[in-house]
Amino acid sequence: MKKIIKPTILRGTRDFLPQQMACRNQVMDIIKSTFEQFGYASIETPILSPADTILGKYGEEGDQLAYSFTDRGGRRIALPYDLTVPFARYMAANYRELPIPFKRYQIQRVWRAERPQKGRLREFYQCDVDIIGSDSLLCEAEIAKIIVTVFDRLKISNVKIKINSRRLLNDILSFFGVLEDKVLPAIRLIDKLEKIGEDSVIDELNKIGVKNAREIIETLKPGNNNIITLNKLNKFNVDDINNFLGLSKQLSVPDENILIDPTLARGLDYYTGLVFEVIAPGSDLGAICAGGRYDNLCSLFSDQDFSGIGVAFGFERIMMLIEKDKLFDNSASNSKVLVTIFDNDQVYNALSVYNNLINVGIPAEIYMGTDKLAKQLKFADKKGIPFVVIQGPEEIEREEIIIRRMDTGLQKVLSKDQLVSYMRGYYEAK
Amino acid sequence: MKKIIKPTILRGTRDFLPQQMACRNQVMDIIKSTFEQFGYASIETPILSPADTILGKYGEEGDQLAYSFTDRGGRRIALPYDLTVPFARYMAANYRELPIPFKRYQIQRVWRAERPQKGRLREFYQCDVDIIGSDSLLCEAEIAKIIVTVFDRLKISNVKIKINSRRLLNDILSFFGVLEDKVLPAIRLIDKLEKIGEDSVIDELNKIGVKNAREIIETLKPGNNNIITLNKLNKFNVDDINNFLGLSKQLSVPDENILIDPTLARGLDYYTGLVFEVIAPGSDLGAICAGGRYDNLCSLFSDQDFSGIGVAFGFERIMMLIEKDKLFDNSASNSKVLVTIFDNDQVYNALSVYNNLINVGIPAEIYMGTDKLAKQLKFADKKGIPFVVIQGPEEIEREEIIIRRMDTGLQKVLSKDQLVSYMRGYYEAK
Repeated sequence: MKKIIKPTILRGTRDFLPQQMACRNQVMDIIKSTFEQFGYASIETPILSPADTILGKYGEEGDQLAYSFTDRGGRRIALPYDLTVPFARYMAANYRELPIPFKRYQIQRVWRAERPQKGRLREFYQCDVDIIGSDSLLCEAEIAKIIVTVFDRLKISNVKIKINSRRLLNDILSFFGVLEDKVLPAIRLIDKLEKIGEDSVIDELNKIGVKNAREIIETLKPGNNNIITLNKLNKFNVDDINNFLGLSKQLSVPDENILIDPTLARGLDYYTGLVFEVIAPGSDLGAICAGGRYDNLCSLFSDQDFSGIGVAFGFERIMMLIEKDKLFDNSASNSKVLVTIFDNDQVYNALSVYNNLINVGIPAEIYMGTDKLAKQLKFADKKGIPFVVIQGPEEIEREEIIIRRMDTGLQKVLSKDQLVSYMRGYYEAK
Repeated sequence: MKKIIKPTILRGTRDFLPQQMACRNQVMDIIKSTFEQFGYASIETPILSPADTILGKYGEEGDQLAYSFTDRGGRRIALPYDLTVPFARYMAANYRELPIPFKRYQIQRVWRAERPQKGRLREFYQCDVDIIGSDSLLCEAEIAKIIVTVFDRLKISNVKIKINSRRLLNDILSFFGVLEDKVLPAIRLIDKLEKIGEDSVIDELNKIGVKNAREIIETLKPGNNNIITLNKLNKFNVDDINNFLGLSKQLSVPDENILIDPTLARGLDYYTGLVFEVIAPGSDLGAICAGGRYDNLCSLFSDQDFSGIGVAFGFERIMMLIEKDKLFDNSASNSKVLVTIFDNDQVYNALSVYNNLINVGIPAEIYMGTDKLAKQLKFADKKGIPFVVIQGPEEIEREEIIIRRMDTGLQKVLSKDQLVSYMRGYYEAK
């Protein structure tokens, strides 16, 4: 008996069916074209990578996070864990050939070694956008503009861009007497506010010797709106937040999309300026986009210093939102018309009708066989093709075709020559 | 001293700079949109795969060909060697949900375990297009039409589609008395004609017991054109070749793009019908696209039978041709205009000009800093941005801007309101 291999895939990886792909490609195209409209250049980095160029940043932890192995040639290999580290390596290797400030975007798969579970995949896409080599707050404002533009075009409305400032946080902590060597540990604890709650964070802060922990937390809590929050913080250094708000306003980023949240500590031991975290209202997915300003992007790989700012769009979470709310119509096929084949003797006629459509760029298909017409119509229906062309011996004789709208079933007789302009009219009206 | 990790990549993998990516993306988009225009659906399969689903087809050889390893969880993993085997697994797993005949395309990276050398990469892209579940020769004709359409749109002209037929080859071999069990070994030897030459192939054929080896080879040699070749073969079964030519003609595939070559044995032990191999004239790159009809795509993974036909476009070889002949202009940035910043006091004005451009969809950039104007112009030049907006205090006072064409250096004063329609006129004229 023939041995059959089970057609399985690894947990945490996925096959994508045509309808899913159609939707994913639409979303990807919107993200890409927005990045490109703002002047960001597309780059790509290798997938198979020397392990130290991927794991370096994470130290010993790296092996737990990134997907790594020894290949048959004895090389230590890792797959990208994110797109930041490969980009840092890329900049260190290629900065001499790039226009500085360098604006890049990168959309690629990344891998995680964690055990896959709901919402945690082993293999997934990320979409990064960064500006390197400028410390102007214009960059931050532009990133905010890109965020609202992308989500607007994706029909995900009312996103909240939470922002915070490393400078503000430093200022508040120093005001309350937190010593310099306690700042990073304190920030890491503040980062756990949502996870473990206020009381536990205060306990933990006390444990590491931070006095005034309760006042610090009270000070950090945002007010009901940005004006209240800023008033509350008026004795601290909120210059970068204020400058950012002024610049963003010039780019018509709506006030209501921005939420100053001084408790936001997202990787503030890695980031050095403003940080961003984007939340979709009414969703429990967590951040759908996040990032911030960092110094010394390339410090692992080069003596060259680059300050920059960037965010990563969480493509898979965005797709979950879009699929849940059916924000994109992905039921329809790309093809606008199916040319049916009446019988074997009519194949050449059908091909010539099909050829006229294809040659002027109309997305079209011809049925690949001479099954019964009912089966061919069913095929068009399953693929969501809106029009079908039928041509029996009488129509051929009269150089005519029948065009059938699949949604209504209405049929119309056209001369062969009229078909292209008829379909063009429909196609261009869409 | 700080330890610096060398920013290296593995041999046979590549970093892509913005100009290369711009060109690669253009080519990719043309290939994709052509596949989509013909009604082929996009799918994706995982990269990390259980080793047996990748290596199965290749048997013991598999480990030498595909990139495989044992991961930290003890799983045997392989990376796709091509897109055919993952597609066969995908069909076996998902065919119930797909419209049959199923037309799919797939553009993904694949990996080879071979030692990298010039033109042989460890990590590269393939672009596959297949029709599954129809044994009509219409499929073959459509694939030929797609091939000429893709290469036409890529400005690679006069490609030759070499074709051969498994049925014809069987017929010729049986006419010359080759026994059934010698047919596949004989075909594998004939496949070596170009590599080792006629005399060696005849020697080898004799060695495996094929008599009439010289007559066989003489019979297989193509004539100066297809008509001569077909005449020469008129006592053999060339039905499928003739039918294919008739159908292709209806799809206006030019005769001169097709070359019947009975010596073409390309994987004829895997393929079961017509085979294709596309050559760019005057290039020594070998096949830039190849494939054919196969039966039982999924036999490794399922009892379900699917006949199909497909070709793989060799994306990296196509890129080599395009880069060598500079077929695409990739010097220009996507951005059409750079808004400069005169000095710190004018940032808000510059942002507002920039915002007006961006909000109507014009690809634009703002300079991220307040460097000297000369440096900002140089930046526009390096990125190939065709226009620059300059706005000093006087222009701001009069609500005007200066627009400068970077190629000629000519400057023109416009009112702030005129800028959008000026740029739109330029942009839409392109």
